Amino acid sequence: MIDVVLGADIGGTNTVFGLVDLEGTLHMSWSIPTKSSEPAEKLIERMKEVIDAADLSANNFNLIGIGAGAPNANYYTGYVENPPNLEWGTVDLKGIFQNQFSLPSAITNDANAAALGEMLFGAAIGKKDFIEITLGTGLGSGVVVDENVVYGKSGFAGELGHVIVIENGRKCGCGRNGCLETYASASGIRRTAFEVLANKTEKSLLRDISFNNLTSKSIYDAAEAGDKLALEIFERTGEILGKALANATAYLSPEAIVLFGGLADARHFIFEPTIKYFNQNLLPIFKDSCEIIPSKLPASTAPILGSAALIWKELNKSQIEESA
Amino acid sequence: MIDVVLGADIGGTNTVFGLVDLEGTLHMSWSIPTKSSEPAEKLIERMKEVIDAADLSANNFNLIGIGAGAPNANYYTGYVENPPNLEWGTVDLKGIFQNQFSLPSAITNDANAAALGEMLFGAAIGKKDFIEITLGTGLGSGVVVDENVVYGKSGFAGELGHVIVIENGRKCGCGRNGCLETYASASGIRRTAFEVLANKTEKSLLRDISFNNLTSKSIYDAAEAGDKLALEIFERTGEILGKALANATAYLSPEAIVLFGGLADARHFIFEPTIKYFNQNLLPIFKDSCEIIPSKLPASTAPILGSAALIWKELNKSQIEESA
Repeated sequence: MIDVVLGADIGGTNTVFGLVDLEGTLHMSWSIPTKSSEPAEKLIERMKEVIDAADLSANNFNLIGIGAGAPNANYYTGYVENPPNLEWGTVDLKGIFQNQFSLPSAITNDANAAALGEMLFGAAIGKKDFIEITLGTGLGSGVVVDENVVYGKSGFAGELGHVIVIENGRKCGCGRNGCLETYASASGIRRTAFEVLANKTEKSLLRDISFNNLTSKSIYDAAEAGDKLALEIFERTGEILGKALANATAYLSPEAIVLFGGLADARHFIFEPTIKYFNQNLLPIFKDSCEIIPSKLPASTAPILGSAALIWKELNKSQIEESA
Repeated sequence: MIDVVLGADIGGTNTVFGLVDLEGTLHMSWSIPTKSSEPAEKLIERMKEVIDAADLSANNFNLIGIGAGAPNANYYTGYVENPPNLEWGTVDLKGIFQNQFSLPSAITNDANAAALGEMLFGAAIGKKDFIEITLGTGLGSGVVVDENVVYGKSGFAGELGHVIVIENGRKCGCGRNGCLETYASASGIRRTAFEVLANKTEKSLLRDISFNNLTSKSIYDAAEAGDKLALEIFERTGEILGKALANATAYLSPEAIVLFGGLADARHFIFEPTIKYFNQNLLPIFKDSCEIIPSKLPASTAPILGSAALIWKELNKSQIEESA
């Protein structure tokens, strides 16, 4: 029998989950519709049915725990608090998992799960102090200090996407102005693209694309084709991100900052300016103590691996405590 | 016999040290000249002579450890690395203490020591996640996560004074521009005072004081006397500090931010604007989870208490580990 945990990522549209062993191998995985208007219990019931139908023991799997990533998940309380895309209200998600499966369970948000996945299975193996930055529609982050995710008093620490980087800057979904994620994220770089297209007169492949059709990928493709404005858009994005990460280093002095997600897939176009402005703005005593590196988690399975890492870490911790 | 530790604060001019018990009572204390041109060994020898002369056992004291705060002290390595006001170069200060006293020793910088003092003996008793801000000539800080000071990879985490808050802002001693401490510190508020005096035309008590003679205390006295420009100087200082602390909360979600030092002694003049702008700029999920409070450490003995707290925490930790 192989010990595995269930890693689950609950999104507004779909919920993906799979069986992950201690080495990070994903053995089986599934995707089901979340049905955001149904209560949370129904979703977990449907997940249980899928798992039961897979007949784990006949397949030599021994399920020993559940880890789940969900929006607005509070690791401490186990509650999900008014998730934006789910009509759940505030619900004891950890308790629901424990009731359904009678197994140790833990929940956190997707960026913290990504950080844990990176630490157990990805680019941060062996690293004690690092920051995971997820560059998706928004900018999420997981802060790891001495091998533990920082949750803080509220349970919601590590909101680097909502550090205000430009006084009276761009309007953010949070209601304030100038948050980092309005510049450094898939939607942020799109806004920068339109700002650059507005301010400059040079021809650009991007002038044929509407705001709604523009993606990080289109800017990447244009940059690959040598489009000067596309390069400038990456430069400006990397400047703001690099400066913000230099400030983050003054707080935490991490040994690495790991960039994950669609925008990080633009590789040298985003890494080069980010690293350049990071180094230019770093306090001298932190020079050469922190590297900015790409994630090593596969984009498609990272959410499952991250959630699985969350519960693997809990299970290992309790084993260490028992044997002490 | 009463168990006590030696808490020491090594400054460029004087070194103060004293005997502190587990409750934070300071039983005896001394101050000797540091003699910055002498090697570190000489200073520790002179400290040892003072302690020996005090005949601790005859006075019923049992000395069990040494904690020291020093500029550029690295907690991990035990080395002090090129302290700005001491001609020591890089030296194994922890090792020197251990050799001289044959007792467990630990060193850190003064802001981290202040944070530990606050946690064991001051305003942060019982708090697991908080930030200590020392508002002296510069702005120092100690970040505490889950009851431990965050040192990070370099050993120098928690440099909030060198977070860049104003792009292309005031020149900082670190060589960069716009660092928080160029605005929020005793020297920062003096610069703000001169900026306000330059920009405005109103009469002010402060117009009779030269830059070199101006102190936080003179601005406080003017504010007490109802001087409008003095109030505006505090308002601007609190605005920049409050916004920076709101950003700090996005990283760490502390339950408290403790303000210590000369500028914090301006009480409501600095606390009111700081708290106002802090709350105005806080991400909504952190509302009401963090309070900004004054230190409860006595200004005169805080450096000794903080350094003593450092080694008390180490000694307690090893006791807990031994009994596990």
